[in-house]
Amino acid sequence: MDKSKQYKIFSDPIHGFITVPKGIILKLIDHAYIQRLRRIRQLGLGYLVFPAAEHSRFSHAIGALELGQRVLKNLREKDTTISEAELNGTLIAILLHDVGHGPLSHTLEHSLIRDFNHEMMSLRIMQELNTEFDGALETAIRIFTDRYPKKFLHQLISSQLDIDRLDYLKRDSFFTGVSEGSVGINRILKTMRVFKGNVVIEKKGIYAIENYILSRRLMYMQVYLHKTVLSADSLLKQIFRRVHFLWKHDKLPPIPSHSLRYFLTERPSARKQITSEMLNHYMRLDDHDVYISIKSWSEAEDAILADLSTRFLNRKLFKTTFTSKKEQKKLLGDFRDRTSRELKRAGLPHDDDSVSFYLDADESFSEAYKYETESIWILDDDDKAIEFSKAADTKHIIALTKPVVKPYLVHMKEII
Amino acid sequence: MDKSKQYKIFSDPIHGFITVPKGIILKLIDHAYIQRLRRIRQLGLGYLVFPAAEHSRFSHAIGALELGQRVLKNLREKDTTISEAELNGTLIAILLHDVGHGPLSHTLEHSLIRDFNHEMMSLRIMQELNTEFDGALETAIRIFTDRYPKKFLHQLISSQLDIDRLDYLKRDSFFTGVSEGSVGINRILKTMRVFKGNVVIEKKGIYAIENYILSRRLMYMQVYLHKTVLSADSLLKQIFRRVHFLWKHDKLPPIPSHSLRYFLTERPSARKQITSEMLNHYMRLDDHDVYISIKSWSEAEDAILADLSTRFLNRKLFKTTFTSKKEQKKLLGDFRDRTSRELKRAGLPHDDDSVSFYLDADESFSEAYKYETESIWILDDDDKAIEFSKAADTKHIIALTKPVVKPYLVHMKEII
Amino acid sequence: MDKSKQYKIFSDPIHGFITVPKGIILKLIDHAYIQRLRRIRQLGLGYLVFPAAEHSRFSHAIGALELGQRVLKNLREKDTTISEAELNGTLIAILLHDVGHGPLSHTLEHSLIRDFNHEMMSLRIMQELNTEFDGALETAIRIFTDRYPKKFLHQLISSQLDIDRLDYLKRDSFFTGVSEGSVGINRILKTMRVFKGNVVIEKKGIYAIENYILSRRLMYMQVYLHKTVLSADSLLKQIFRRVHFLWKHDKLPPIPSHSLRYFLTERPSARKQITSEMLNHYMRLDDHDVYISIKSWSEAEDAILADLSTRFLNRKLFKTTFTSKKEQKKLLGDFRDRTSRELKRAGLPHDDDSVSFYLDADESFSEAYKYETESIWILDDDDKAIEFSKAADTKHIIALTKPVVKPYLVHMKEII
Amino acid sequence: MDKSKQYKIFSDPIHGFITVPKGIILKLIDHAYIQRLRRIRQLGLGYLVFPAAEHSRFSHAIGALELGQRVLKNLREKDTTISEAELNGTLIAILLHDVGHGPLSHTLEHSLIRDFNHEMMSLRIMQELNTEFDGALETAIRIFTDRYPKKFLHQLISSQLDIDRLDYLKRDSFFTGVSEGSVGINRILKTMRVFKGNVVIEKKGIYAIENYILSRRLMYMQVYLHKTVLSADSLLKQIFRRVHFLWKHDKLPPIPSHSLRYFLTERPSARKQITSEMLNHYMRLDDHDVYISIKSWSEAEDAILADLSTRFLNRKLFKTTFTSKKEQKKLLGDFRDRTSRELKRAGLPHDDDSVSFYLDADESFSEAYKYETESIWILDDDDKAIEFSKAADTKHIIALTKPVVKPYLVHMKEII
Repeated sequence: MDKSKQYKIFSDPIHGFITVPKGIILKLIDHAYIQRLRRIRQLGLGYLVFPAAEHSRFSHAIGALELGQRVLKNLREKDTTISEAELNGTLIAILLHDVGHGPLSHTLEHSLIRDFNHEMMSLRIMQELNTEFDGALETAIRIFTDRYPKKFLHQLISSQLDIDRLDYLKRDSFFTGVSEGSVGINRILKTMRVFKGNVVIEKKGIYAIENYILSRRLMYMQVYLHKTVLSADSLLKQIFRRVHFLWKHDKLPPIPSHSLRYFLTERPSARKQITSEMLNHYMRLDDHDVYISIKSWSEAEDAILADLSTRFLNRKLFKTTFTSKKEQKKLLGDFRDRTSRELKRAGLPHDDDSVSFYLDADESFSEAYKYETESIWILDDDDKAIEFSKAADTKHIIALTKPVVKPYLVHMKEII
Repeated sequence: MDKSKQYKIFSDPIHGFITVPKGIILKLIDHAYIQRLRRIRQLGLGYLVFPAAEHSRFSHAIGALELGQRVLKNLREKDTTISEAELNGTLIAILLHDVGHGPLSHTLEHSLIRDFNHEMMSLRIMQELNTEFDGALETAIRIFTDRYPKKFLHQLISSQLDIDRLDYLKRDSFFTGVSEGSVGINRILKTMRVFKGNVVIEKKGIYAIENYILSRRLMYMQVYLHKTVLSADSLLKQIFRRVHFLWKHDKLPPIPSHSLRYFLTERPSARKQITSEMLNHYMRLDDHDVYISIKSWSEAEDAILADLSTRFLNRKLFKTTFTSKKEQKKLLGDFRDRTSRELKRAGLPHDDDSVSFYLDADESFSEAYKYETESIWILDDDDKAIEFSKAADTKHIIALTKPVVKPYLVHMKEII
Repeated sequence: MDKSKQYKIFSDPIHGFITVPKGIILKLIDHAYIQRLRRIRQLGLGYLVFPAAEHSRFSHAIGALELGQRVLKNLREKDTTISEAELNGTLIAILLHDVGHGPLSHTLEHSLIRDFNHEMMSLRIMQELNTEFDGALETAIRIFTDRYPKKFLHQLISSQLDIDRLDYLKRDSFFTGVSEGSVGINRILKTMRVFKGNVVIEKKGIYAIENYILSRRLMYMQVYLHKTVLSADSLLKQIFRRVHFLWKHDKLPPIPSHSLRYFLTERPSARKQITSEMLNHYMRLDDHDVYISIKSWSEAEDAILADLSTRFLNRKLFKTTFTSKKEQKKLLGDFRDRTSRELKRAGLPHDDDSVSFYLDADESFSEAYKYETESIWILDDDDKAIEFSKAADTKHIIALTKPVVKPYLVHMKEII
Repeated sequence: MDKSKQYKIFSDPIHGFITVPKGIILKLIDHAYIQRLRRIRQLGLGYLVFPAAEHSRFSHAIGALELGQRVLKNLREKDTTISEAELNGTLIAILLHDVGHGPLSHTLEHSLIRDFNHEMMSLRIMQELNTEFDGALETAIRIFTDRYPKKFLHQLISSQLDIDRLDYLKRDSFFTGVSEGSVGINRILKTMRVFKGNVVIEKKGIYAIENYILSRRLMYMQVYLHKTVLSADSLLKQIFRRVHFLWKHDKLPPIPSHSLRYFLTERPSARKQITSEMLNHYMRLDDHDVYISIKSWSEAEDAILADLSTRFLNRKLFKTTFTSKKEQKKLLGDFRDRTSRELKRAGLPHDDDSVSFYLDADESFSEAYKYETESIWILDDDDKAIEFSKAADTKHIIALTKPVVKPYLVHMKEII
């Protein structure tokens, strides 16, 4: 029998050729739920700032799968026992870790389903697939939910140094062209091992970890919390706020996407459970539904919705101004008046309600490394595991364990 | 006055930082017509085979612009006189050369507008923009249509070695991970010069050209005419054929995209002219309109349309079998019967008409280098320009000047 | 016991991290005979044209070892049985395949030992090491000399698609910056398999092979047979010819390197055997011996030797002129007179003998693919192995199977 | 006149094609003094740890020249006036900034000339070249010595963010494969500008600077002060100490290199001046002289010199143990006894003097960023220049402004 027909090869600009053996994993990749990730961009609106950052959650999922294959192979070579079932379970959990994401940005997910949490949705989908595949995801689900005895398998899926982050940092850095965010994933994977049941990093990998944490920080500063990305996210949020506002006033515009209409009119909550109906609609939703709706709204009767939507499509974004917490409040007052005047000048409604769709106050938050909750452990020469910030040979890492909070305003460019 | 605010920088994984001076070019980039290219994938359905090949026509347009900037700068340094107006005109023409492309594949464009030709549409759009920008695109249009005296400027935009190809070969090779298609663009740009009014390549660039032609050939073989890409394109074509079929039988399914509905019901022709109505609708159309429609059709009443659309969304593609011209006809008969039986087995209509939506016969065509029509010229040591295939030191290039035609069938996997 | 201490990791800019298990292979790497390769540049005088092409035969040997590890692992995964002994034997043969190379260019090797052949020397060294390591290289030697039953192991070491070529083409292309020579080694390695006892390439790898053959051709044209590399090699040859000439006239200049003196005064021949004395001296010889001697000769009493050596050190190279076979002879006459006049002008001896050190006629030779002798085999869909140039879908490959011969003259720049 | 013959192109794997116009700069590159840098490795003994880190000071000099060309072009585009003379002067100073380096490591330079300082030597060489080229280096020398009015030109040559560092960090990171040390040079170059006569970085470049400082730190930790590099450097120092010891006892071994013999027997000092004799010998010295001498010494009569030299050639290095300052002294005592015993066991002299050649106590020193002396300035939004560590938005940078001192011992592996 021909072995070459027992696996499939994906070609990836970052990891090269990715070999996936036939079986449950390839079947899952071919499933409509995962194919749907091809239609959701990994960086949401990031491509509006970084033109080539157009990669999908699907290519990230395949990339993470490959890193998972590499690290599990390395761990086995270092004499950690990992059964075939555990290997498959871990790889499935890695592949599906993000399957619960909705279209575009995180913000949007919450406009669709109240009390939403994408990990809860991922789990719900995994359970659905488990039923469909006759229990083949049992181990994957236990690992994903941290109910599997070998804790290190869960740590590979969810921790401060999980496979997900390694792939997305590398991938986002690659496609944005922000070389400062590039992570030495191979060195990290090579120096990972299991020690007393937990994932640790061998001492020779310590500088790769230092670089990883710094890269993470720099990706937040330069990409994820880039001024223009924040402003695009804010605009998207405002559009959906406006639709909600119109719905409350019984003026809901036509919504060309059936599933999106469901969420915007039903306003379902995930607090108690994710129903089959919610799941089915959610699985039909991708970036296309949002774009087609916004395109349609750009010709809506409501002047504000039409204006916001047109701005979005043609990239006439608002401006982001960082400020201190104290000054933010003060500026907000100033900006309200100026926005009102500007709207008037533009022939748009300019009452307080209307102004609120053109002015947003928020704060960005990033944390390069949280040492209290989920530490990264370094294995030193005496075979002792030491928390990373204590093992590092200078004290500059400690400063990185504090979250960075930056208040900001998003407002019309014209008012400054 | 602060110079740093007089240009905008785009970050590109392939060309690095791309500096675009403020002025007409940046205004055009910000125009809705060009922003629309962000929503059309450069490789159409190629991402179904190469997961990371998700780049848009927009990022290609910016990349081509950068290569245009580089080559014009080089030519000036080699003492070719290029005025500011000519420089801007050429760059605008490069930026807009593909603006007339519609969503997804070339095939689709012809389902939308009869007698379509994307260059004609690009020209129509440039004329529209010329009006909007008070004649600022005059020179660009003359260069684009080869009505400008300095012929070499048009050659940069449209020839066998134009800027468009240099960027897309490099870019497609990069994102697909097909390293065999990688082109040494910098060497080519460095050795380009103007000689007696035409673009030529200095002799030391001859091997870079040989490599370029071969890379082009390999990209056709491995990417553009990849079996699975051909089959995905065929499926898309069949979906639109089915919609047309239903329309003719007065059973048109709902089409959630307004502009797409226009094209599918009006069936406009571009033979005489592209009307404003056509243009307006066309400029509202992007990949999203097609995907959202296919998503909607996956639940259509018509069983065949629903089946084809579901296959498309979940990547249950047909199979491509290459064959000889002679055998193609014979196989077609066999496959018709088998397809009919298979459709019957699947509970789908299986009359002759129905079968035609599940079986496609076509041929792929590629031509690495056409030496008769638009030659590539090499400048030899004695300052004589020689056609490339005559300058090259072995005869293997001649063989590459013949087109490669490969007949094939696209059919259900189950029937073999 | 700690697994992480059972292997050593080398960091390579091309292949990334290279893991070498402890044992015989690491012992061989640490041996003085292999460490010596660190002091011999892979591309000889190529760095005089490509400044960063300064890589040694050692880094190439480690790179080839890694590719060997990858391909053997792949073959095993495709169900080819390869025992540990065979694996080690093959890797050792790959590691040592070039250990018999002498300093600088191939040309020089023949100035040192008459009837020299570097594979014979490699074998001699392997035998020596086999004695030192108590027979641990037995299998390696049988594979290297093609006396091992599994022919495919030898094919990995010496054939038209051997591991050696894959690494050096990639490596030389990388360090010279000649991107046209870049080879898709991963695709080739992934599609290699064993079929009826021979190495073949699966059909999906056919374009990677086409690219490989073309890249090989382009590396010959742009690097290995680059005009200036040919002229530097010629100058080196002339220096050693001059030393030989002086030795015959009892005017041998001081030679600061003991081992080099041995070869230049003893003129040993390898026809019958490589004696221990020859071996010992040869193993002490590296690029340093040649450079230090040429530095010393730049102040030699003999004016011609001093002039040639100074030219070499300060990169005042001769010029290479390609010509036809017919014209070469005619030009040689012209150039002799002109060289004589130029030498006179420069105050150097200008008799016929002297002129011969400033004028060289030779021809370069390259062969991209020899299909008659050692074919590359493609495994087609019907499980038949077809010789590559017959399998390829166009006929341009045939033209590449003819050797390219280019006669040339190397002469003083001043005479033209 | 043919423009293409007015410049020369170098191909570099890092910066791509480097165009150097004909004229004084190309003449300097062709000069014997600069060609000599081809024979000195940039990272000294670093290639013993990182096999491909075999690049020379020459390729670094050409790389720095290219970065110089880019930054000066950028500054001009940002309206900083730089005359042709200033441009050439700065580029010459960049090209020659390291020309005073001797073979191998910094340590060795001090064994050759007492009171040595490589910048002093670079200056001496520039003055010599200035005479040879009739004053053409006048401006370069004034810029190099900071006696030129436009201070920013000197800052490009010597500061915490000079062109030299940008190239060598990038280059060393590239060839060692230590991706953590990779610097985003293009972003830094793009955001450099002149403000009130000094080089500053525009605010949008602040994260590129943060990354640069961290990369510098990681390169020190992972490459420049790598344990094995320290131990190789120590062994080289011991060899030369031993030769000096033998010279003092009138037992100097033969030294095959004439110029090296000069330095080892004359022991010249650079305190008062660098004489022509010193300069001439120094300019004849490169890595080859050292290697050929050590090869000769590996067969010296003196058992210790022979042993140390053989270890060096065959990479039988000592071991480095990091320790605290306090413990270093204590350990030294222990290690002395053990070394003496080990030497005795090995049949080597084992008195106190002998032991001192097998045991070395030293400390490594690195400083990622010195903010007091030569600050990096960030230009903020209000057009004020702020010292980098004050501008950065978290305090972790301050910790990096403290030097890292790590005491260590280098000793025989056998004694632990």
